[in-house]
Amino acid sequence: MSIGQPMANYAAARRVGDFVFMSGVVAVDPSTRRAVSSYEDIPEAARAALRTVGYATGQMSVDVFEAPIVAQSWFVLERIRQLAAEHGGTMDDVVKLVQYFRRLPDYAPYNRVRGLFYPGQPPVSTVVEVSRFLPGDEVLVEVEATAYLPSP
Amino acid sequence: MSIGQPMANYAAARRVGDFVFMSGVVAVDPSTRRAVSSYEDIPEAARAALRTVGYATGQMSVDVFEAPIVAQSWFVLERIRQLAAEHGGTMDDVVKLVQYFRRLPDYAPYNRVRGLFYPGQPPVSTVVEVSRFLPGDEVLVEVEATAYLPSP
Amino acid sequence: MSIGQPMANYAAARRVGDFVFMSGVVAVDPSTRRAVSSYEDIPEAARAALRTVGYATGQMSVDVFEAPIVAQSWFVLERIRQLAAEHGGTMDDVVKLVQYFRRLPDYAPYNRVRGLFYPGQPPVSTVVEVSRFLPGDEVLVEVEATAYLPSP
Amino acid sequence: MSIGQPMANYAAARRVGDFVFMSGVVAVDPSTRRAVSSYEDIPEAARAALRTVGYATGQMSVDVFEAPIVAQSWFVLERIRQLAAEHGGTMDDVVKLVQYFRRLPDYAPYNRVRGLFYPGQPPVSTVVEVSRFLPGDEVLVEVEATAYLPSP
Amino acid sequence: MSIGQPMANYAAARRVGDFVFMSGVVAVDPSTRRAVSSYEDIPEAARAALRTVGYATGQMSVDVFEAPIVAQSWFVLERIRQLAAEHGGTMDDVVKLVQYFRRLPDYAPYNRVRGLFYPGQPPVSTVVEVSRFLPGDEVLVEVEATAYLPSP
Amino acid sequence: MSIGQPMANYAAARRVGDFVFMSGVVAVDPSTRRAVSSYEDIPEAARAALRTVGYATGQMSVDVFEAPIVAQSWFVLERIRQLAAEHGGTMDDVVKLVQYFRRLPDYAPYNRVRGLFYPGQPPVSTVVEVSRFLPGDEVLVEVEATAYLPSP
Amino acid sequence: MSIGQPMANYAAARRVGDFVFMSGVVAVDPSTRRAVSSYEDIPEAARAALRTVGYATGQMSVDVFEAPIVAQSWFVLERIRQLAAEHGGTMDDVVKLVQYFRRLPDYAPYNRVRGLFYPGQPPVSTVVEVSRFLPGDEVLVEVEATAYLPSP
Amino acid sequence: MSIGQPMANYAAARRVGDFVFMSGVVAVDPSTRRAVSSYEDIPEAARAALRTVGYATGQMSVDVFEAPIVAQSWFVLERIRQLAAEHGGTMDDVVKLVQYFRRLPDYAPYNRVRGLFYPGQPPVSTVVEVSRFLPGDEVLVEVEATAYLPSP
Amino acid sequence: MSIGQPMANYAAARRVGDFVFMSGVVAVDPSTRRAVSSYEDIPEAARAALRTVGYATGQMSVDVFEAPIVAQSWFVLERIRQLAAEHGGTMDDVVKLVQYFRRLPDYAPYNRVRGLFYPGQPPVSTVVEVSRFLPGDEVLVEVEATAYLPSP
Amino acid sequence: MSIGQPMANYAAARRVGDFVFMSGVVAVDPSTRRAVSSYEDIPEAARAALRTVGYATGQMSVDVFEAPIVAQSWFVLERIRQLAAEHGGTMDDVVKLVQYFRRLPDYAPYNRVRGLFYPGQPPVSTVVEVSRFLPGDEVLVEVEATAYLPSP
Amino acid sequence: MSIGQPMANYAAARRVGDFVFMSGVVAVDPSTRRAVSSYEDIPEAARAALRTVGYATGQMSVDVFEAPIVAQSWFVLERIRQLAAEHGGTMDDVVKLVQYFRRLPDYAPYNRVRGLFYPGQPPVSTVVEVSRFLPGDEVLVEVEATAYLPSP
Amino acid sequence: MSIGQPMANYAAARRVGDFVFMSGVVAVDPSTRRAVSSYEDIPEAARAALRTVGYATGQMSVDVFEAPIVAQSWFVLERIRQLAAEHGGTMDDVVKLVQYFRRLPDYAPYNRVRGLFYPGQPPVSTVVEVSRFLPGDEVLVEVEATAYLPSP
Repeated sequence: MSIGQPMANYAAARRVGDFVFMSGVVAVDPSTRRAVSSYEDIPEAARAALRTVGYATGQMSVDVFEAPIVAQSWFVLERIRQLAAEHGGTMDDVVKLVQYFRRLPDYAPYNRVRGLFYPGQPPVSTVVEVSRFLPGDEVLVEVEATAYLPSP
Repeated sequence: MSIGQPMANYAAARRVGDFVFMSGVVAVDPSTRRAVSSYEDIPEAARAALRTVGYATGQMSVDVFEAPIVAQSWFVLERIRQLAAEHGGTMDDVVKLVQYFRRLPDYAPYNRVRGLFYPGQPPVSTVVEVSRFLPGDEVLVEVEATAYLPSP
Repeated sequence: MSIGQPMANYAAARRVGDFVFMSGVVAVDPSTRRAVSSYEDIPEAARAALRTVGYATGQMSVDVFEAPIVAQSWFVLERIRQLAAEHGGTMDDVVKLVQYFRRLPDYAPYNRVRGLFYPGQPPVSTVVEVSRFLPGDEVLVEVEATAYLPSP
Repeated sequence: MSIGQPMANYAAARRVGDFVFMSGVVAVDPSTRRAVSSYEDIPEAARAALRTVGYATGQMSVDVFEAPIVAQSWFVLERIRQLAAEHGGTMDDVVKLVQYFRRLPDYAPYNRVRGLFYPGQPPVSTVVEVSRFLPGDEVLVEVEATAYLPSP
Repeated sequence: MSIGQPMANYAAARRVGDFVFMSGVVAVDPSTRRAVSSYEDIPEAARAALRTVGYATGQMSVDVFEAPIVAQSWFVLERIRQLAAEHGGTMDDVVKLVQYFRRLPDYAPYNRVRGLFYPGQPPVSTVVEVSRFLPGDEVLVEVEATAYLPSP
Repeated sequence: MSIGQPMANYAAARRVGDFVFMSGVVAVDPSTRRAVSSYEDIPEAARAALRTVGYATGQMSVDVFEAPIVAQSWFVLERIRQLAAEHGGTMDDVVKLVQYFRRLPDYAPYNRVRGLFYPGQPPVSTVVEVSRFLPGDEVLVEVEATAYLPSP
Repeated sequence: MSIGQPMANYAAARRVGDFVFMSGVVAVDPSTRRAVSSYEDIPEAARAALRTVGYATGQMSVDVFEAPIVAQSWFVLERIRQLAAEHGGTMDDVVKLVQYFRRLPDYAPYNRVRGLFYPGQPPVSTVVEVSRFLPGDEVLVEVEATAYLPSP
Repeated sequence: MSIGQPMANYAAARRVGDFVFMSGVVAVDPSTRRAVSSYEDIPEAARAALRTVGYATGQMSVDVFEAPIVAQSWFVLERIRQLAAEHGGTMDDVVKLVQYFRRLPDYAPYNRVRGLFYPGQPPVSTVVEVSRFLPGDEVLVEVEATAYLPSP
Repeated sequence: MSIGQPMANYAAARRVGDFVFMSGVVAVDPSTRRAVSSYEDIPEAARAALRTVGYATGQMSVDVFEAPIVAQSWFVLERIRQLAAEHGGTMDDVVKLVQYFRRLPDYAPYNRVRGLFYPGQPPVSTVVEVSRFLPGDEVLVEVEATAYLPSP
Repeated sequence: MSIGQPMANYAAARRVGDFVFMSGVVAVDPSTRRAVSSYEDIPEAARAALRTVGYATGQMSVDVFEAPIVAQSWFVLERIRQLAAEHGGTMDDVVKLVQYFRRLPDYAPYNRVRGLFYPGQPPVSTVVEVSRFLPGDEVLVEVEATAYLPSP
Repeated sequence: MSIGQPMANYAAARRVGDFVFMSGVVAVDPSTRRAVSSYEDIPEAARAALRTVGYATGQMSVDVFEAPIVAQSWFVLERIRQLAAEHGGTMDDVVKLVQYFRRLPDYAPYNRVRGLFYPGQPPVSTVVEVSRFLPGDEVLVEVEATAYLPSP
Repeated sequence: MSIGQPMANYAAARRVGDFVFMSGVVAVDPSTRRAVSSYEDIPEAARAALRTVGYATGQMSVDVFEAPIVAQSWFVLERIRQLAAEHGGTMDDVVKLVQYFRRLPDYAPYNRVRGLFYPGQPPVSTVVEVSRFLPGDEVLVEVEATAYLPSP
């Protein structure tokens, strides 16, 4: 699995002054061009972490409804963590998140997953339910992050 | 009535550099966990101000349709004003607003209420209609504000 | 045709520190108060540019479905270019775009038009499908731009 | 603008005994065969009156949603006033109104406009939301009035 | 066929002072408890009259869509004519009609049929589209009539 | 409980000549501004009367669906009775009812309740299903009454 | 009228041990292959019984909405009573009912009819609203009964 | 809070031979006649148990979507446990569950709650999504249980 | 292909007294976690049997619509046959079936397939159309079986 | 039963050169003006033929969903066979069929019925799903045939 | 008005052998690129002809619903007549029409208009209701004609 | 990839006299039984050709919406070209196309692709939007072609 390249010809992130603006991130694996939809689509280490908050149960009838949003939440936040790292920062430097959902009840599992990336208080946060994301209906969450990384 | 705590464990506002980013604000009273829905849910002083622009008429058949958006608009903008004040600023320092609505015709009453907070020209403004907000269908407007408060 | 004034009493753009924030832009001609809907609503030079990427074919049955989004895309990006110019910058200084669509398949033609404004790599980019824009259903795209123009 | 002729071959009003029954009135300009939809479709004097109750703001994003019902409300009530006048009466002689709306929230602006015609208490009043009016979807309100004009 | 009894226990018409108020009339044959739906449900004389305005063509694919509203229009107006006659009047004494339709395009054929009952100008007239009538979906039009029959 | 004041600034009833016209009545308790929705919202005497026609059973799963229309029907007709009494009349003087429903199957329980107010034959009656009433979706029936009370 | 044969090739009821399991019963007359829809579709004795609980009023506008569920409820429970009788039992031996409805408000009239079959307390009971029954949309209720008839 | 009486006049459970059949159980508090909708509607001990499986977080935006199904699941299974106890059994004697949901994704939280009642393997289980339950839309789950309690 | 394990942690079947209760069965292959959707998902022997009743035609445009329900019907009934066999019984010992469908017209092909498992009369049978099954939309039928296998 | 006359005043078929063009055929019996809907609407010989491909089972719950399309398919193709015969040809001379369906899954049973008319390979064939046919919703299939009958 | 050029780059008609195939014709005026929608969009001579079959009444409330389909029917058939004329034929040589409608009830007025072009029997005719036509929703009918014009 | 066999047992094309009639063609690969959905489903040479008209961009977010209709358009027209070739003709001999779409805006990309097959003027052309095609929802276009290939 690779979560590195953007889906189209635009910059994934860009530093301007003390800020790093990131493009909206969705959970699409560029190698397969498909949205993340199950726990198999993320690494075992991620699954282990998700089990600590009660997901990835291994029961088909439970996972079938939860896996898409839980796995996408992990994928998207991990991608933001990587982008911050590429600019020399950590999740604590990501100070603002705009979080778009297709179905607002997905905020509950997303919130548990975000707790894995922000053991302390999460950053400034906006949450809205919208209609759809690129590249299609199976994408459930998009997050636009802003990092503050003042030049030393 | 109290309009101070956020609905979840994230920061209501955060200063980074010369900017204060605020989380998206909705009109939910944390003490009751319910969305603002009538003129009774806001202070009398607010109602008096709203009467100057023609709302809070006291006629049931008129107020029943207008009260939810008018009262929520006041609540949300007042909360932004408070957050700016907590960082030493005023509404004039809030330089950018992203305003999400569930029903775009609500922009008309919102605009009149915003005029009470910005007697002069309002700041940079984006308006879009989206599907839903936290914590549920009765929330009609969410506003994400950015303040510019250069350190002295 | 004139693409200069905003639709309401808010600032079209505002410099704060090294940044120029712009209000969300939609393709409404203030002189007619109508949304751009056909190739006749934009200048001949624009049409010529669009023909280089395969649009403005002159065939009624082809243009009828493509013209609204293609012409609006041009109008919106041209307006952003003008606002950047008014603050002394170019499209290359516009470092972040939040792009809202009513129908996500419109991203494909929008993307071709944006290529005319960004011959190189486009800036940081967020794309979401939402429900509606001001002033009504015929508006298909709204773009919120941020420029970085450090004071010399 | 002319608001005199009915849309079809029936009587606009008819005296029987001490009563004047009026046909249901909608805001269609017979000269253009189109429904009233904007403030341009009514006289400047009407616009001035409407501004006293907060409408006809001149802001496109506000007027776009309010103008149709506000202008139609004025048009319809003015037509009823004319019909009463043709039978030797005034608005005070119009003792009963049945008011049909396509969208009940339109009652709020209608009620403000009616206040311009009835500075005192309005007459006996019935309000229902129905599906549609002649000649089509753009008509938002229809009012059927009854006047009491006892023969001297 | 019999078009005399009401569907429920209320008065079909009642004289008060100089007026005869009639209950809303729908085209239901009390003997069969079914709504009128085809030209077979009305007398041959009625069909002959309808042919003079272009209906009852005998072509199945034409009549199938037109017969229900055309035959119901005739039935309802004939019933009103009978009620007026029972009180000593004619159609010319019926001075006001409130006409409810399930589908407003049905006004066009109804209007042609009404012309058979009012060779001159029809009375004061209100037309609205509503949702449904008693006793069910197949009823397309209901007319409430008021007659003025001053006591001699 | 109080069922006396109107919801807005218009006359509840008005005498003109020998007639008393009444505004359309809905079952909204002005003291709470809420629509009548259960048997608790009406007096015990009313509940006792309703039990004689089989309603107010005390079984939750039965009452939950029937109570709103049954209690509203009682409330609306009682209000009309009061208005007639205020002008010196009784239910027998109320000679015409226009009855609007949101769901036509509600006519069956309404009809049983009306029988309590009109032990003999009810007056001239029109019934139509419309979309909605003031002040909102929970109102299920509106009745417009006309009384004939010739001056002595 | 005959309410004896099942609609397809399966057993209507079968004894196993001390239990008699019954197939789900719907109100379809096998001789006509049509669902019961009016009071004419059931015996006069049934109508008389239903009149004791307020149904079968003879008023068309009341019966048209109530007759289908009331008559089907009677038919289905009578069929269950017959099946119990064929195995030597009575309604008191039917100890469990699973009752499926297409529209849950139909539970209220069903409950009144069931009271005719169970003058005392009804048996263990499950009620759910589902989408549809065999053989089609006009079937409103299906009941699956279990009888306990220990071998002597 | 009391979870003891049924909503209507039928038996909550009944022993026949070695079996105890239970009526379908929904989470309605008979004292308030309202469906369970929040964690406040169940005892603190229940909340504590639910926290062990990750629910009842105290965060409004998380609990708002999860509380209704989680609290109803606890309420329904606790009621079944009580009914089994009234017949001298435990949850292990409840050998079969038919579980109806309004929204199948609710199976995931329900399954976690059921694990609190069945630390070992749950009984024979059927799960279907249906349309609605008594007494209304806010009920999300209904469970029909069968216990096997052979007479000693 | 394997049709042995349940989808979640509950018992597939359980003997209590002389009865074997089975959990509701759906056609999901546990090895792939996907619903059966084509004739390739079942064994050749099954296809051969289905051809005897006219299915599995090999024509793409015919099979595309029929294969999902036909193959699922076979899979579900075969699974029930296996569970009966595991408890020492045959299909003749399965005395009761509750059959849930997503689309009731699927009963016709299901009935032909069931005839392969019950050459004689099928057992007691209940059929209802519901909304959805675990684990998702592609599941078209669920069957809950009860076997009677008295201990020798 | 008679399947000879067209529904309106147009030619059922017409020879031009070596071709016989036929009007689109639907299964409407001109004598009753109703669409074919059951096996009773076609001759016994047709039913016998349909039984050879598994239809007309005599089981109500199976036939209720299949009969309309199966019987209409037979009716339409038989009518085309008759039209070919009237011009001196057979089904083998009908070289092209355009087949419109209201519900594409109906192609499967149609295809089996067409096999009765074309024991060998069917002709050139186009299949599309459209919205509706004359004279109404109950018509499920329309076929437009072209025959090649070179003049000798 | 001009009804000559096609909307796109394809042939309007083409002779092959003894046949002239015509492209599907819709009522779009190439000079305005708009669909015909009123009687003003067709010549006075056409209006006069339409008046002979009862259309073009001059009453706004009647014409508003009928004009679009009546005027388009005339436009389309006139265009076919012209194309036939360009190849040396008349309407009698047009031997086959495939007629697509957006709303099948439009067949009735279309049929009356077609009678003006075919005073005798119309040609072979297929009628289907489909979803939409080029260039958009306002087009109500499309006709594809085939002429037989054997070379002399 | 193979685009040769039809999906069912009918002739793909048939010569009668000087004409070759072709069955309606859809883009389904018989070897996989799946509809063409991406550029990978067609040969590289096809992709190269499509790039000359601006498609097959390689950008995921652009191709995801355009690929299905563009690739299907190529597939269908290529299949028609092959069928013409099998009868000794070329695309220029295909004189008539009836083109059915599921979504009419797909005509624009289809038209560009057709230009690759008809560098000059395309043949006589009919375009309609219908509901669905065999074998399912993913098929976006069906084309029925007629070739004129007079025998030498």
